[in-house]
Amino acid sequence: MKQYDIVIVGGGPAGVTCALSAKNTYPDKKIVLIRKESKPLIPCGIPYVFHTLNEVSDDILPDNPLIASQIDIINDEATGKNDHKITLANNGEIAFEKLVIATGSKAIMPKIEGADKENVFLIKKDKEYLKNMKARIQEAEKIVILGGGYIGVEVADELVKAEKNVMVIEMMNTILPTMDDEFGNKVKEILEKEGAKVITGKSIQKIYGNKSITGVELDDGTKIDCDLLIVSCGFRPNLELAKKFNLVYEEGKGILVDAYLRTSEKDVFAIGDCAAKYDFFTGEFSNIMLASTAMAEGRLVGSNLYSIKTIRQYPGVLGTFSTKIGNIAFAVSGITEKRAKARSLDYTVGIAKAVDRHPAMLPDASEITVKLIFSTYSHTLMGAQIMGGNSVGEMINIMSVMILNKMTDIDIYNLQIGTHPLLTASPIAYPIINATVDAIKKWNKC
Amino acid sequence: MKQYDIVIVGGGPAGVTCALSAKNTYPDKKIVLIRKESKPLIPCGIPYVFHTLNEVSDDILPDNPLIASQIDIINDEATGKNDHKITLANNGEIAFEKLVIATGSKAIMPKIEGADKENVFLIKKDKEYLKNMKARIQEAEKIVILGGGYIGVEVADELVKAEKNVMVIEMMNTILPTMDDEFGNKVKEILEKEGAKVITGKSIQKIYGNKSITGVELDDGTKIDCDLLIVSCGFRPNLELAKKFNLVYEEGKGILVDAYLRTSEKDVFAIGDCAAKYDFFTGEFSNIMLASTAMAEGRLVGSNLYSIKTIRQYPGVLGTFSTKIGNIAFAVSGITEKRAKARSLDYTVGIAKAVDRHPAMLPDASEITVKLIFSTYSHTLMGAQIMGGNSVGEMINIMSVMILNKMTDIDIYNLQIGTHPLLTASPIAYPIINATVDAIKKWNKC
Repeated sequence: MKQYDIVIVGGGPAGVTCALSAKNTYPDKKIVLIRKESKPLIPCGIPYVFHTLNEVSDDILPDNPLIASQIDIINDEATGKNDHKITLANNGEIAFEKLVIATGSKAIMPKIEGADKENVFLIKKDKEYLKNMKARIQEAEKIVILGGGYIGVEVADELVKAEKNVMVIEMMNTILPTMDDEFGNKVKEILEKEGAKVITGKSIQKIYGNKSITGVELDDGTKIDCDLLIVSCGFRPNLELAKKFNLVYEEGKGILVDAYLRTSEKDVFAIGDCAAKYDFFTGEFSNIMLASTAMAEGRLVGSNLYSIKTIRQYPGVLGTFSTKIGNIAFAVSGITEKRAKARSLDYTVGIAKAVDRHPAMLPDASEITVKLIFSTYSHTLMGAQIMGGNSVGEMINIMSVMILNKMTDIDIYNLQIGTHPLLTASPIAYPIINATVDAIKKWNKC
Repeated sequence: MKQYDIVIVGGGPAGVTCALSAKNTYPDKKIVLIRKESKPLIPCGIPYVFHTLNEVSDDILPDNPLIASQIDIINDEATGKNDHKITLANNGEIAFEKLVIATGSKAIMPKIEGADKENVFLIKKDKEYLKNMKARIQEAEKIVILGGGYIGVEVADELVKAEKNVMVIEMMNTILPTMDDEFGNKVKEILEKEGAKVITGKSIQKIYGNKSITGVELDDGTKIDCDLLIVSCGFRPNLELAKKFNLVYEEGKGILVDAYLRTSEKDVFAIGDCAAKYDFFTGEFSNIMLASTAMAEGRLVGSNLYSIKTIRQYPGVLGTFSTKIGNIAFAVSGITEKRAKARSLDYTVGIAKAVDRHPAMLPDASEITVKLIFSTYSHTLMGAQIMGGNSVGEMINIMSVMILNKMTDIDIYNLQIGTHPLLTASPIAYPIINATVDAIKKWNKC
C-alpha cells in the first residue's frame, strides 16, 4: 500500500493551488494529487476553445508547477475511504494523514424532453468531450445556447465570431442576470450587433429530432430550428465522494465545512466548487462558484493542514466576476441593485462614466461606466459593477478589496489613487471616486 | 467690490476639483475660480503634446464641469490680501468668506552656466510656452533631456517616437529613480532599443552656444553636441501667494497645513502642490506632487470649507505613480526597496511574474512583474512596484488600496479576486497573490 502524508483528490485549480501551498508550508511532506483527467482544463478558458484558441489542448492547466514542487500525480478515481486510507479504482489503497477533496462541480442538465439526442451538449470540463463538441460545432450552422449567464454569453460571442448562426435563450428577463439589467442589456445589444439572436424570459420545453437534434420548442410553443444545442444552465457541486465517504453535505450546496474548510470528519478537508459556500453579506448558502474563490480556499487549506497557521475571520463569498463580450469588458463584485432589492438590503446607488485615457483623444480610449451600491445607513460599499475597456478586469479587484475592507463613501472620497494619461481615466473623472461622489450627493440632499 | 462666498485661486486639477466639491456640498454658495491661464493644461498629459497629441491645445483641462456647476471663472492674478478681501491685478478687490490657494508648483532650473541660452526649456505648465517649445523641438535634431524621472523618460519616449536623436542624462545611478533599479534599468533598455542614449550618474555643468545652445558639458568634462535641452529636474511649491498673504510656509516644502488643509490663517486653505505634504510612513515632509493627491485634497477641502463634515485620520502621501514607456507600463505605490533601506525600514520582498491573460497564448498577453515590500515584523504591505501591460495602471490602485488599509500578507493570501482569460492573469498565477506567497515562503524559512 502506498503511503502519502497529504492526498488531494481533484486536479482543477483548487486542488493544484492546495498542493502547491501545502508544499510551500510543509516542504518535507509527501504529497500526491489524484485526478480523473490526465489533462485537466483551465475552467474559465473553456469558452475560448471554440474559436479564439486553435485547439482544446491549448487550454490545459500545466503540470510543471506540480512537477517542479515534487508533487506526485496519479491519474485515477477515488472509490472509497476507510479511516486514513482511500481506495482507487486502478491503484489499490493509499494511506494518508490529511485528505483534501477538490472534486469540483458538474454541469446541470435541466429536465427537457429529448435532451438525450445527439448534438445536445453541456459545458463539461472534459478535454475529449470538448474536442468532439468543437468538431460538431464546426459542422453545425444554427446553434442554440440555453442559458445567458457568463458562460452562455461568452460561448455565444465566440460562436458569432466563428460565423455561426447563434441564438441565446435565457429564462430570466435579461441575460447576464448576475449583473443589473443595464449591463445585461448592453451585452444583448453587443451580441445582436454581432448577429446573434437573444430571447429572454423563455425556456426550452422540448428538443426535436430523430437521432440528432433538429429544433427546440420554447415554453410559449414557439419552434426554433437548430442543428446543435449548448445547455449552459449552471453547475452543481460534485458530491459523489462526499456520499461515498459519509461526509455531511447539503444537496445542491456542497460539503459542509467550517471557516478553515474542515469537513465533518477529522483530517478531511473540502475546497472549491464541491465545498459549501456562504454569502459575504447574509451568510446564507451561496451558489457562486469561481476559480479564484476555489484557489483562495486551496491556499488556506494548504497552509493549515496540520494546524491552523493562517487565521481568518470567515468572510463568505463576495463573488467577483469579469468577462468580455465583443470589445467591452464587464465585471461585478458583491451586491447588485437587483440583489439588494431581492434580499431587502437598504442601499444608495452611485454612478459615474468616464473615458479611460486622458485627454480622451489618446489612443485606445474607451468609455467606462461604474455603478456602486452603498449601504444607505452604514455608508459601507457593498457592491460594484463596471463596463468598459480591458482594464475593467483589474478595476473590479480594486473594488473587491474595498468591499472586503468594508470601506465607506468617505474612505473612497479620500482615496489616493494613481492615474496616467495612457493608462487610466483622469483623476478629475476617475469613475470609482466620482460614482462615490454621486452617492454622497444623494445623501447630502436627504 | 465683488463679493463671493468661496474664492479659489488656481485653475489646475486641485482648484477645479475643490470648486466642484464645494458646489456639491454647498449648492447655494457663490463660488469663483481665479486663474492666471485662460486655458489651463492637464498636467500629466504635457509630455504627450510633443508627439502623440497633435496640438498643445489637445491637452486643455475642460471648463464645462465648472460652467455646468455655475462656478464663475476670472482670468487674473491675485496680488494681495487684506482680511477677507483679495486684490487682483486687473479686477480690483473681491471679498470672500473662504479662500482656497491652489497655485501649484514651478519647474526647477538648477544653477547651470549658460542656462539662459535659447532652446533651453523647462517643462512649464503654460500653453504658449509649450507651443513655442514644440515648434522648436520639431526643428531640432539632437535633443538632450536633463533628468530621468517620470516626466523626463516620458518626454524621451515621445521624442524618439518623433524620430529625434535623444539623450537622457540622470544624476542618480538609474533612471526612474523613484522605482527600484531593476525597473529603471528596464526603462533604460526600452529607451535604448528605441534609439535614445541614456547616461546615469552624471549632471550638466555648462551649456555651450552663442545665442542658442550648441552643446552641454557634463560634470566629468565630456562635451555633448545638441541643439535643444529640456530640463526636467522636478518642481517646487509655488509660494508666491503664501509670501504675499503672510501665511506660514516651509521653503521648498509648501504652505503649512493641518489634516484638513487649513493654513495658519482662519478661513484660508491650501491644496495641491503648493501645500506641504507629509509622508505616509514616516510623517516627514514629502516632495511627492501628484494630480491625484492634489484632487483628493481638493475634494476634502471642498466639502469641509464651513465646518469639518468629512472626517479623516491624516494618512500622509502614499505616492502612487504610473507611466508607460514603449509598450510597457510601470507603476509604484508606497515604499520601494531603495527607500526602505535609506529610511531604515525593516522589510521582506516578495516577487512574482505572470502573463496577464490565461492561457498565455490568448491575444494581447504581456508578461507582468510584481514586487511587494512587506514589513518583516508587522507583516503589513508597505509598497508595490509593477511592470507589464496596460492593466498595470489599475493594478497599482489595487495595491494602493491595500496599503492604505494596512493589509497584511495573510489578508492578501486570503483575498477574493476576479480573473478572466481575456483580461487578467490566471488565478493560479495571479501575481499580487503570488508575490505575497513568495514573501511568506521567506518568513516560513526564518
